[in-house]
Amino acid sequence: MAKEITARSEDYSQWYIDIVKKANLAENSAVRGCMVIKPHGFAIWEKMRDQLDKMFKETGHVNAYFPLFIPKSFLSKEAEHVEGFAKECAVVTHHRLMNDPNGGVVVDPTAKLEEELIVRPTSETIIWHTYKDWINSYRDLPLLINQWVNVVRWEMRTRLFLRTAEFLWQEGHTAHATKQEAVEETLRILDIYARFAEEYMAMPVIKGVKTVNERFAGAEDTYSIEALMQDGKALQAGTSHFLAQNFAKAFDVKFLNENNKEEYVWATSWGVSTRLMGGLIMSHSDDDGLVIPPKLAPIQVVIVPIPKPNPEINEAAEKVMKALKAKGISVKYDLDRRKRPGFKFAEHEMQGVPVRLGIGNRDLEKGQVEVARRDTKKKTFQPLDGIADYIVQLLDAIQKNLFQRALDYRTKHTISVVDFEEFKEVLNGKGGFISAHWDGTTETEIKIKELTKATIRCIPNDNVEEAGQCILSGKPSKRRVLFAKAY
Amino acid sequence: MAKEITARSEDYSQWYIDIVKKANLAENSAVRGCMVIKPHGFAIWEKMRDQLDKMFKETGHVNAYFPLFIPKSFLSKEAEHVEGFAKECAVVTHHRLMNDPNGGVVVDPTAKLEEELIVRPTSETIIWHTYKDWINSYRDLPLLINQWVNVVRWEMRTRLFLRTAEFLWQEGHTAHATKQEAVEETLRILDIYARFAEEYMAMPVIKGVKTVNERFAGAEDTYSIEALMQDGKALQAGTSHFLAQNFAKAFDVKFLNENNKEEYVWATSWGVSTRLMGGLIMSHSDDDGLVIPPKLAPIQVVIVPIPKPNPEINEAAEKVMKALKAKGISVKYDLDRRKRPGFKFAEHEMQGVPVRLGIGNRDLEKGQVEVARRDTKKKTFQPLDGIADYIVQLLDAIQKNLFQRALDYRTKHTISVVDFEEFKEVLNGKGGFISAHWDGTTETEIKIKELTKATIRCIPNDNVEEAGQCILSGKPSKRRVLFAKAY
Repeated sequence: MAKEITARSEDYSQWYIDIVKKANLAENSAVRGCMVIKPHGFAIWEKMRDQLDKMFKETGHVNAYFPLFIPKSFLSKEAEHVEGFAKECAVVTHHRLMNDPNGGVVVDPTAKLEEELIVRPTSETIIWHTYKDWINSYRDLPLLINQWVNVVRWEMRTRLFLRTAEFLWQEGHTAHATKQEAVEETLRILDIYARFAEEYMAMPVIKGVKTVNERFAGAEDTYSIEALMQDGKALQAGTSHFLAQNFAKAFDVKFLNENNKEEYVWATSWGVSTRLMGGLIMSHSDDDGLVIPPKLAPIQVVIVPIPKPNPEINEAAEKVMKALKAKGISVKYDLDRRKRPGFKFAEHEMQGVPVRLGIGNRDLEKGQVEVARRDTKKKTFQPLDGIADYIVQLLDAIQKNLFQRALDYRTKHTISVVDFEEFKEVLNGKGGFISAHWDGTTETEIKIKELTKATIRCIPNDNVEEAGQCILSGKPSKRRVLFAKAY
Repeated sequence: MAKEITARSEDYSQWYIDIVKKANLAENSAVRGCMVIKPHGFAIWEKMRDQLDKMFKETGHVNAYFPLFIPKSFLSKEAEHVEGFAKECAVVTHHRLMNDPNGGVVVDPTAKLEEELIVRPTSETIIWHTYKDWINSYRDLPLLINQWVNVVRWEMRTRLFLRTAEFLWQEGHTAHATKQEAVEETLRILDIYARFAEEYMAMPVIKGVKTVNERFAGAEDTYSIEALMQDGKALQAGTSHFLAQNFAKAFDVKFLNENNKEEYVWATSWGVSTRLMGGLIMSHSDDDGLVIPPKLAPIQVVIVPIPKPNPEINEAAEKVMKALKAKGISVKYDLDRRKRPGFKFAEHEMQGVPVRLGIGNRDLEKGQVEVARRDTKKKTFQPLDGIADYIVQLLDAIQKNLFQRALDYRTKHTISVVDFEEFKEVLNGKGGFISAHWDGTTETEIKIKELTKATIRCIPNDNVEEAGQCILSGKPSKRRVLFAKAY
């Protein structure tokens, strides 16, 4: 198998596209901006979804399903929401096709909808319209509801997983009796997102709050987790919004509190999407293909007979598989006789299988197998006896190593700067997160973006107060914020 | 809690609506024909989905995701498909909104799509367009792919779960090298559907093949599972289609066979939807509310303290919960102090919790708990000692009883008739499945439907040949088919 992918050092964008394509993760479809998620990509997404879903349920959330369509008039009920957000979207105007006398079908002009329907770009409006009927008293609160759905935002420049017109996501929409509860929920979810990113995706993230300019349209505060990719660009990987009473007011959702007084309901919303797939790919993969952390790998171990299956090898492989499955490890025996071992090695490396076991007759005589790690590409021989325990530890070690490697990269690429010259120097060099003082105005933020393409990713939650001067305006600043060029 | 639902005997349709509403399963949304699936309804659907997904994966299928939108021109590529099917659908014509000077938003006329997009009513066309690039050789086959998605068909008369404009479903789309393999796949899936319906939903079904008139548009053969509801009407609960080479020809999908000859690919498609929720509800529920088979109940056992929680009761409940959870049983302790036991009983009955345990101090002194079955509403006292084992057996007994009860009902309501008078008599009486001779022509089939509203549900797979005369035309018939009025 020839090297089929572009090196990162040569063309990072092309490398990413090559990985997505050659590892069979996704591809562009016949519909502009919409992707096909292929079985291997979808299997990874399913593992991410199932783990996140478990974490949501453990913290009291339940799933539901709200309509795909939103009446057009709903979008403009929350003023900031429609301003910031809802313009580039798919609009349904008709509900019937008819035969075209010239062949094919055409839209039936008599089947025009009275009010156009928007394919949901996000569901705050339809959900808060629904919550109005569900919430009357403090006894109906909190509502902790999530849905896993497709959404559509008409993006002009798309990139598989990272930015597509249609994508899959979860959107949580919670309703609370007090501001404090809603704020706590916003931060609880941010913590879940961060824990998922770090413990499962092995992707270190910075938790922080967005500036006014980068806030979700309709939110009072937007928190995000921000990760750093191998090209020094940041990826916003998940957002959690404190919506205050904005949507409750827009949709007139009030409740009777314990003192029998009417109040507007407090809200949060939060989401992560198939964009996480992009983050996963770019955090760990290398010039040989995809690298997946063991906890999210659909197949954690592949066994390759060397050079071909035979009764002894098959028997040994069966034993190993049984022992691995008993430990909850997913394993596949690659029996395909038409492909040579070298071809299979390259293929499994491309697909990101964390561990490969090679079994040959000579090894069996010695009571050993060859163990190859995908992350470091190191090979060792290990005794067959106790191999399952060894693999359990190895998968754990790989998971930790991937996280540490990504963390080391981020540490090395997080630079504190004192002035705008240094700021530009870092951006024009190797990039990364830049910790810098900013005067707190949207004006300066936008100017920096225009000059450098870098944006304020967040004001990190754990940043301490520190007197300083804004890198652009020189005005006083109370704390550093995190800049980066971003996806 | 007052009786809140209409009796079946009084108004079956209203009874169904009442159950869906009062058991918090689903409701109509602000968008015509689209439903909101509420958390309790969605939790049941999740259990159904997870079990089916497991069965698909056990038989070698994988999941993927294809776009929500289908270019309009794709629909007319398979001639029968567009004729039979794809006319009533949501059509996206624009991709942007703009501010209306008079307030609100309007469609931006400059953002008209060159080619309209259809919200998928089913995905054969976009998937076979994609498969063209995935299939070159017999080595690429079979492709055994499924997706769990939302689809839209613009229905004029909707009913929650049974017929909605948007619904959730799975659609499998497989590609094979030979006709035989594709036929086998069609029947394998039909078996999975039937096994799922009977073993998990406790809903007996008839497997059979559809007549030409009732076939899926574009299929060579459509198989279905048909269930009988408590009002004597049939419900088509799942379909599996042998598509022959129709879509391969329409989308030009060929492969090189082992002899290096080019052939068109053979196909199947198959689906079940949230319609199954309607079948589940109508198969088992009664005038006190929802009845759910234990295998699909989100909460299998609820514990109610009588009359209120106290330290002794709490301690006993904790012990019981721990023992039940250790057996894999889902259990909830209803600690709400604001509601009286009688109210809670009615509420849990309405929600369909299979088993209710009542724990009071006097019972504890005797070392016992009260056990109430939802299916028969019988109550007994059982020793606390060994209660978990007892519950395991009880849940199994309830599951079996529900199936048997539904099967007895169906047996009683499956009538063989000899002529059209008898046929109409049954239909005008208690309804049910009617086994009758038919001359095999679409003309007769349609005439019978016009005269009686009854349709041929299927030609059951296990019907034997039997010479007879068509009930309407009197022409010779080789075997009986199954008629019923249907949802």
